[in-house]
Amino acid sequence: MTVPTVGMTIDQIETPALIVDLDAFEDNLDSMRQIIQASGVRLRAHAKTHKSVDVAREQIARGGACGICVQKTGEAEAMIAGGITDVMISNQVTAPSKIARLASLTDKARLFVCVDDADNIAALSAAMRGRAHDLGVLVEINVGNGRCGVEPGGAALRLAQQIKAADGLVFSGLQAYQGNAQHIRDHEMRAAEVARVVQATAETVRVLENAGLPCSIVAGAGTGTFPLEADSGVYNEVQCGSYIFMDADYKRVRDANDDPLAFRNALYVLTSIMSVAGQGRAVCDAGHKAASIDSGLPIIQDRPDLNYREASDEHGVIDDPEDSLTLNQRLWLIPGHCDPTVNLHDTMIAVRAGQVEAIWPVSARGMGT
Amino acid sequence: MTVPTVGMTIDQIETPALIVDLDAFEDNLDSMRQIIQASGVRLRAHAKTHKSVDVAREQIARGGACGICVQKTGEAEAMIAGGITDVMISNQVTAPSKIARLASLTDKARLFVCVDDADNIAALSAAMRGRAHDLGVLVEINVGNGRCGVEPGGAALRLAQQIKAADGLVFSGLQAYQGNAQHIRDHEMRAAEVARVVQATAETVRVLENAGLPCSIVAGAGTGTFPLEADSGVYNEVQCGSYIFMDADYKRVRDANDDPLAFRNALYVLTSIMSVAGQGRAVCDAGHKAASIDSGLPIIQDRPDLNYREASDEHGVIDDPEDSLTLNQRLWLIPGHCDPTVNLHDTMIAVRAGQVEAIWPVSARGMGT
Repeated sequence: MTVPTVGMTIDQIETPALIVDLDAFEDNLDSMRQIIQASGVRLRAHAKTHKSVDVAREQIARGGACGICVQKTGEAEAMIAGGITDVMISNQVTAPSKIARLASLTDKARLFVCVDDADNIAALSAAMRGRAHDLGVLVEINVGNGRCGVEPGGAALRLAQQIKAADGLVFSGLQAYQGNAQHIRDHEMRAAEVARVVQATAETVRVLENAGLPCSIVAGAGTGTFPLEADSGVYNEVQCGSYIFMDADYKRVRDANDDPLAFRNALYVLTSIMSVAGQGRAVCDAGHKAASIDSGLPIIQDRPDLNYREASDEHGVIDDPEDSLTLNQRLWLIPGHCDPTVNLHDTMIAVRAGQVEAIWPVSARGMGT
Repeated sequence: MTVPTVGMTIDQIETPALIVDLDAFEDNLDSMRQIIQASGVRLRAHAKTHKSVDVAREQIARGGACGICVQKTGEAEAMIAGGITDVMISNQVTAPSKIARLASLTDKARLFVCVDDADNIAALSAAMRGRAHDLGVLVEINVGNGRCGVEPGGAALRLAQQIKAADGLVFSGLQAYQGNAQHIRDHEMRAAEVARVVQATAETVRVLENAGLPCSIVAGAGTGTFPLEADSGVYNEVQCGSYIFMDADYKRVRDANDDPLAFRNALYVLTSIMSVAGQGRAVCDAGHKAASIDSGLPIIQDRPDLNYREASDEHGVIDDPEDSLTLNQRLWLIPGHCDPTVNLHDTMIAVRAGQVEAIWPVSARGMGT
């Protein structure tokens, strides 16, 4: 392949390629910093979106983030190797070999992890015994996501008490994320769902406080809901990830509401037309291996006359009723879902004013363990 | 991460991990070799499924393949760098920089490409001028896939005549692949669709022959239909890819019919349970970034009591009505679609009798250009 390099024009980039529009990206960093500064809560930006040390550094340096979240021990290793020093794994780490890796990372960074199981707390404590720095541990509660997490209330209290009593662990608070709320199209329904989440979280915070276990961190929220959690008086850390890039699904949330999210689409899959042999259709070179479809097909930027109709592994079939597209013509696709799309690519190509300004390795690509 | 190594037990592999069951894989190689030897057609195995030089070598050495197909110039480069010397790009290569790369590969391997456009033929010929070896060119016809390819008949003839007259190119035949037919559940409906495809292809072959343009290659077919094309008397190369691994969708095709495909599931995503905090549900550590869902969610091997209900980026939610699963318990997932699942992973871990026997890099992972 022809490796993209700084200074190349966009026309010289081979496709399909993952592109970051730097102006939009920096606007997103600045918008979020302003919102967060006005809110009084902390932003712990979610690095699962980008898996990139370069992006994480910008989120902290320019974007006002206090640190980052990741989902996997391998992501934490990649971020800490890149110089990020405040990392929360917003997820469970339960396998013995991963717990050992996690424990060793406490030598290099301030580290937090989430738990929802008593045996897991015991295993974490055993691995931390004799280490120089403690591991911060949050109890994850299930506030409607139906995934990990104990139920709010008494079950969370029992785990928090166990953490407090455990060697090498510090009870740091609650993880209370409702992912399903992020993409609810209707703003009022979304707000109602978050109100329910906030209430369950607030009750659990009270139960813990009454038992002498104050929460230094009450964490959750994503790009679709974070102003609501930030205003709740209960949460003090929000974990937005998608805000830096956005995607087609968040575009649909934004377009469905009068309260536009402040963020711009900054992530694209640049694609080229490779076949115009059909009547009323053209075929581009970006399919499942270039853009994830778990939240729907890509949208074609600035071309409402076209429709990305169907993806196969390496092709996208585009409805082009006017047969307007020509061979090798380029289109900018807004992927359906940013996080798993980034994970398909080894690099992000950051562009401005028609030129490549930076190449960002997707540092933790494929690091799922 | 803990890097998997040869000799490790399966229990020592960190999850999620992409696993190849070597016994099943070798059975699939052998089954295909026997079918192909009896059929009188050639197998040109599709490497887009695995993107692995190691697997391609086995398909040729043990599995009776005459060479391989790929979809992308970058895949061809990776395969040829790994010593594969007979490669067809079963797809269009139209960008000028990619055409230049393609032309230079003719120094190192017998190379074929597909076309559906007159300008593309002219550009390929210009790039091949003065080179030592010709480029084999097939005309792709649209036999119902509705993707690339000109219509069968006269349009194909005009392109074939242009190829024959072009410097540096050799007219090699027809590419006639109907991907949509592969996964038709009902065997009779599948056979009827292939009969239609074969008829359109046969007519085009006749039109070309009558014009003095015999097809040395008539290519197409996949794992779901290839016995039909092989028996047609029209096709002489089949391009099966999935047969070495199979997946959940091909399992559904196989299970829906009395004529079971001869191939075994050989590809798994090994996953671990990371949360049992919910009643009636457990959560595993393999989501969208470990298994592609474009052809449906994974199936859990040998556990009909469980259901992989929902994927998010790094989680799979499993219905476990009896609460039978325990923390860190392992499950073998059959991914929905093998090709894009392999493309998520940097390596395949080949196992036999409980141990790691080989580590296969996914040599062309992410090489979409």
